[in-house]
Amino acid sequence: MADVQIPKTYKAAVYDAPGSISTAVKELETPEPGPGEVLVNLTHSGVCHSDLGVMTCSWRGLPFPTPKGQVGGHEGVGKVVKLGPGAEASGIKVDDRVGIKWMAGICGSCPPCLEGRDGVCANGKISGYYTPGTFQQYVLSPANYVTRIPDGLDSAAAAPMLCAGVTVYSALRKSGAQSGQWIALLGAGGGLGHIAAQIASKGMALRVIGIDADSKKQLVLDSGAEHFIGLGEGDVVAKVLELTGGLGVQAALVLTAANAAYASAPRLIKFGGCVVCVGIPEGDMVPIGTAFPQLLVAKEQSIIGVAVGNRKDAIETLDLAARGLVKVHYRTEKMEKLTEVFQEMHEGKLHGRVVLDLQ
Amino acid sequence: MADVQIPKTYKAAVYDAPGSISTAVKELETPEPGPGEVLVNLTHSGVCHSDLGVMTCSWRGLPFPTPKGQVGGHEGVGKVVKLGPGAEASGIKVDDRVGIKWMAGICGSCPPCLEGRDGVCANGKISGYYTPGTFQQYVLSPANYVTRIPDGLDSAAAAPMLCAGVTVYSALRKSGAQSGQWIALLGAGGGLGHIAAQIASKGMALRVIGIDADSKKQLVLDSGAEHFIGLGEGDVVAKVLELTGGLGVQAALVLTAANAAYASAPRLIKFGGCVVCVGIPEGDMVPIGTAFPQLLVAKEQSIIGVAVGNRKDAIETLDLAARGLVKVHYRTEKMEKLTEVFQEMHEGKLHGRVVLDLQ
Amino acid sequence: MADVQIPKTYKAAVYDAPGSISTAVKELETPEPGPGEVLVNLTHSGVCHSDLGVMTCSWRGLPFPTPKGQVGGHEGVGKVVKLGPGAEASGIKVDDRVGIKWMAGICGSCPPCLEGRDGVCANGKISGYYTPGTFQQYVLSPANYVTRIPDGLDSAAAAPMLCAGVTVYSALRKSGAQSGQWIALLGAGGGLGHIAAQIASKGMALRVIGIDADSKKQLVLDSGAEHFIGLGEGDVVAKVLELTGGLGVQAALVLTAANAAYASAPRLIKFGGCVVCVGIPEGDMVPIGTAFPQLLVAKEQSIIGVAVGNRKDAIETLDLAARGLVKVHYRTEKMEKLTEVFQEMHEGKLHGRVVLDLQ
Amino acid sequence: MADVQIPKTYKAAVYDAPGSISTAVKELETPEPGPGEVLVNLTHSGVCHSDLGVMTCSWRGLPFPTPKGQVGGHEGVGKVVKLGPGAEASGIKVDDRVGIKWMAGICGSCPPCLEGRDGVCANGKISGYYTPGTFQQYVLSPANYVTRIPDGLDSAAAAPMLCAGVTVYSALRKSGAQSGQWIALLGAGGGLGHIAAQIASKGMALRVIGIDADSKKQLVLDSGAEHFIGLGEGDVVAKVLELTGGLGVQAALVLTAANAAYASAPRLIKFGGCVVCVGIPEGDMVPIGTAFPQLLVAKEQSIIGVAVGNRKDAIETLDLAARGLVKVHYRTEKMEKLTEVFQEMHEGKLHGRVVLDLQ
Repeated sequence: MADVQIPKTYKAAVYDAPGSISTAVKELETPEPGPGEVLVNLTHSGVCHSDLGVMTCSWRGLPFPTPKGQVGGHEGVGKVVKLGPGAEASGIKVDDRVGIKWMAGICGSCPPCLEGRDGVCANGKISGYYTPGTFQQYVLSPANYVTRIPDGLDSAAAAPMLCAGVTVYSALRKSGAQSGQWIALLGAGGGLGHIAAQIASKGMALRVIGIDADSKKQLVLDSGAEHFIGLGEGDVVAKVLELTGGLGVQAALVLTAANAAYASAPRLIKFGGCVVCVGIPEGDMVPIGTAFPQLLVAKEQSIIGVAVGNRKDAIETLDLAARGLVKVHYRTEKMEKLTEVFQEMHEGKLHGRVVLDLQ
Repeated sequence: MADVQIPKTYKAAVYDAPGSISTAVKELETPEPGPGEVLVNLTHSGVCHSDLGVMTCSWRGLPFPTPKGQVGGHEGVGKVVKLGPGAEASGIKVDDRVGIKWMAGICGSCPPCLEGRDGVCANGKISGYYTPGTFQQYVLSPANYVTRIPDGLDSAAAAPMLCAGVTVYSALRKSGAQSGQWIALLGAGGGLGHIAAQIASKGMALRVIGIDADSKKQLVLDSGAEHFIGLGEGDVVAKVLELTGGLGVQAALVLTAANAAYASAPRLIKFGGCVVCVGIPEGDMVPIGTAFPQLLVAKEQSIIGVAVGNRKDAIETLDLAARGLVKVHYRTEKMEKLTEVFQEMHEGKLHGRVVLDLQ
Repeated sequence: MADVQIPKTYKAAVYDAPGSISTAVKELETPEPGPGEVLVNLTHSGVCHSDLGVMTCSWRGLPFPTPKGQVGGHEGVGKVVKLGPGAEASGIKVDDRVGIKWMAGICGSCPPCLEGRDGVCANGKISGYYTPGTFQQYVLSPANYVTRIPDGLDSAAAAPMLCAGVTVYSALRKSGAQSGQWIALLGAGGGLGHIAAQIASKGMALRVIGIDADSKKQLVLDSGAEHFIGLGEGDVVAKVLELTGGLGVQAALVLTAANAAYASAPRLIKFGGCVVCVGIPEGDMVPIGTAFPQLLVAKEQSIIGVAVGNRKDAIETLDLAARGLVKVHYRTEKMEKLTEVFQEMHEGKLHGRVVLDLQ
Repeated sequence: MADVQIPKTYKAAVYDAPGSISTAVKELETPEPGPGEVLVNLTHSGVCHSDLGVMTCSWRGLPFPTPKGQVGGHEGVGKVVKLGPGAEASGIKVDDRVGIKWMAGICGSCPPCLEGRDGVCANGKISGYYTPGTFQQYVLSPANYVTRIPDGLDSAAAAPMLCAGVTVYSALRKSGAQSGQWIALLGAGGGLGHIAAQIASKGMALRVIGIDADSKKQLVLDSGAEHFIGLGEGDVVAKVLELTGGLGVQAALVLTAANAAYASAPRLIKFGGCVVCVGIPEGDMVPIGTAFPQLLVAKEQSIIGVAVGNRKDAIETLDLAARGLVKVHYRTEKMEKLTEVFQEMHEGKLHGRVVLDLQ
């Protein structure tokens, strides 16, 4: 165990004007870990599209406006530097390299927790939304809720795995699709999609049909999809049926926020297949257009919703990354550039992910 | 094996004017069982609401108008009297008491068949729709697709089990609800519903909340529901949440054709729960109103469609009936009364089921 | 929240001479709950056969001799009287009525914990063995690991449910047996067995064949078994096959410590069925005599081992008890009688369970 | 549909002296397909070690001595040339290329059949044992029980997939191991093993540790195993634990007939893991040596037996082969060489498989 020097204050990027795209770097006092908590010295944090939604108070999944001074971020990686009272029971030790996820902590005792559905915890805390997030050099976390980063996995590369990676991993598992079966990824070239394509093809031996804008073709095929269907190529449904012997895919994962994807997904699946909802459309809620009882009954199909993964999902996702089966395209930026990064993201100019170098 | 006398001709009730409510009793020639077939001397046939839809060509699930002269019916019980060539491979013998279901036969080789999803068979035949049904004294059936009727179960009582019973049994199994969990039955006092309530409570140790018109209260409670909520009593959703500790039920089975039931069902279920579609609304197709990706994701819920059960479901359903755990209210009528029965059904005056005595 | 007076010292029964049957009542200092802990004022504790094994250092499942002064017991019920720092995160409050189980605490982070296999936790603590148990008026417990006792369930009646009840509930679930299927309980009239018979028949709609010494017949049938087979009645295997149409049962649960039960269990199960190991034989280890690869392959059968249940199992078991579906025969005794109770247990004279009244 | 000329007689290799290693080529009369049957013109048949056991009456899994004149073989591939009465219901057509498996036909109606456990069918027929097998140019088969050979898969390459391939595919599925988990293959370099290694690693994304004689190292690694442990290298258990972070593998498949493999397999698995029995030891039955209830309970482990796969397994296995993910080493021989092939097999000199070219 190294003798770690913990500074009295540290740097954090805060939302200084929630509702608009703006962050400011502030000096904050280093907190003491409370009972069962650890203090983590963060070195990296991914910047996710959800952070933009939280900062601009535009994401309808959240009930309250984001408070001024909020430290955002939910894809953090760093080293444990101090244990609060009782934290050793978790097995976590000083110097362990760990990650922080969207769910910053769960109660562990409510009915969803007892079923391993962490994202539905009745008392869960969200990193970067009413709980200080990972756009800072030090963060507190429940000792039993950090995720160990496996040796050999770069901290910067691990960061985006903790959100996008875990979410699609969980969705692929819950889809019920078995190795050797066809799945369709709607939005296969996006932030979630290109990770899903890699996990599905290399990590789960699923056969992937990627669907996205024509320009994403190469990225999707490089990510392990056997086939790519461009949205500009015409009848997506007909093409999927042709590629799958007329039956359709076992599971269609909607990884975009586009209502149009939800409208077509049910027509891509085979008898007994399922549509997996992951992407969350913004604006007014639109029912899944072809979710007719008549059709679901006729082919014994289903539609399922999947929230974020749990700790087991996170461990297994990071294991895939450590084994080199999943890679994310990212560039690193300093904390001071965060506002510009969000601006770029808002304008749709961001290619790949950005990971903040917090050191 | 008894020495059975098979007559040259026999009586059958045919749809003499498909599109309207009309049947006529005809004398037909007794057919010879072909390869792999058996000839069954039917003694009873249930009359199901689907038969009315087939006869009047009003059920949108079926692609073609019903032909004139069609023998309807799909809940038949009788004795095997003759085996066609090769039929003995199935293990069925002359004198075995057997049942005929909605699926009159399946190919056994297509992808859905290999997954036990008989109702989705690519080559399936439907009893009473382009395949002669059970409103007659003799019927042919594939030897490997009849269902043995257990000793001690009355033939008349067995008949309705073969359709309504098997369907709800299959739906309850596919709901994934485990013993001790709460389920809601929408349409709990109907033909499907009151059987589902019995199977769920007595046969599967599920806890049942029955929902239906106020007048159905006693029937639903007698069928094993712990609680009844009348549609006239006010806020069904609030009452279900109150009865389930604020969480909602694990599964909500929609056993009516009412679009209104589909609109409320998603709001009755708990995190990780599912809406099970069974009843098929008539008229224009309406999407399940609250099937929003946002809500399904937030609570990791699902919506599933369930078609008819398979042979294993049928055997297990009949076993429950033979053990006295499920009973159907029915009266018997002669074949000659079939038109009147359909008329009564059409006018909504029918209480319980009618079983034709075909002898 | 009541204003609770916590005394400075309290009464506990300790093992004053581990290795022999002897307990002594001592006055101990009331401890302070540490981080994440709660202090529970126990009112009742069941006395389990495992406690006898722990006290006499005769149970081979445990690696070290029990230390002198150990407070035994692992079926405790009482009220939370004080929360340690951070304990409120669990949702537990002062005055909550809660239970303590065999597993006194788990790390929540090791691989078995993340799969819900609490009994296999790499860092688990056992109540009454190197961790102070429930034969005392006050005990500490991790706040997130107590089990809420449902309203309407008597504390004395709840105590034995926390060990025997949870264990057999978990075993029945893991057996994979579905409602309507046959199971065999070997040792159906014992402490585990008569609870298993009730849970299986009334709580899970399984069909139970109980097997035990002839004298247990009435208890087993009263507990919900459809059939009883006395060990003195002759060929148990033949009788089970006869009762199950020649096939055998879906699952045979061995709930005794008798090697003879393990020898016969594999011959009771049907194709695809399983033997569930629960009871732990003492003395030299004997392989399950008919666990031949040839036979397991020929009928695609399995043998599974089941340890104690987890928190979800405990909640669901107590729910069954609160609904009146499971009852345990017990008498209450004062703490001072504990040595006599163990003596009675050791001599095989104990009928039903003993619950200590700790007040 | 080609106009096929069916000869009056054809060539078959029969066991002319069951009990010893001897076959004779005979001219047999071409049979007519009965009801529900098809006549298949075989072009290839694999020669399996089980055939040797059947011929020499030395395999204890079979109840009766093999009759003189038996046509052996159970890995046949050819074209359908004629349909018996009613066979068209299966969807099979003349000219379809199809395969014949160990199970030559099943009743489709008994309890095991209704659960998809074809290998346990109460009325099943075994190809090459009391049912004419595939060491001949023409064979009859139930139309609904042939397996379609996918386009692009060579007939000779398909043959061994129908037995060894399907069996290990089924065993891997039933092991419950999930993509990304470790499995151990005992006998990884054998006929079953090297196929299992390929299916597991390339077709299911499992991580494979192969165990076998030191000489098999290269074959096992080439087949996709990440690690190889030679039996001469010392402590297999210690090495498996070291490779798996101290936990052990999720599933250990015993693919040899060696009792020694069954003795060590239970010590290779992690908590909650399972030993999968596939290989069938010859000679006296020996219980799985470490199948102690104490150990199975302590780690919640299981032991399962797996028989041959069903039609769905066969289709999925052939799909993997057609996609090039699984390859078998084989050489082709003429039917007249069959006795020599068996002799070679008996002497342990056979490397890879032999496929008879029947044309």
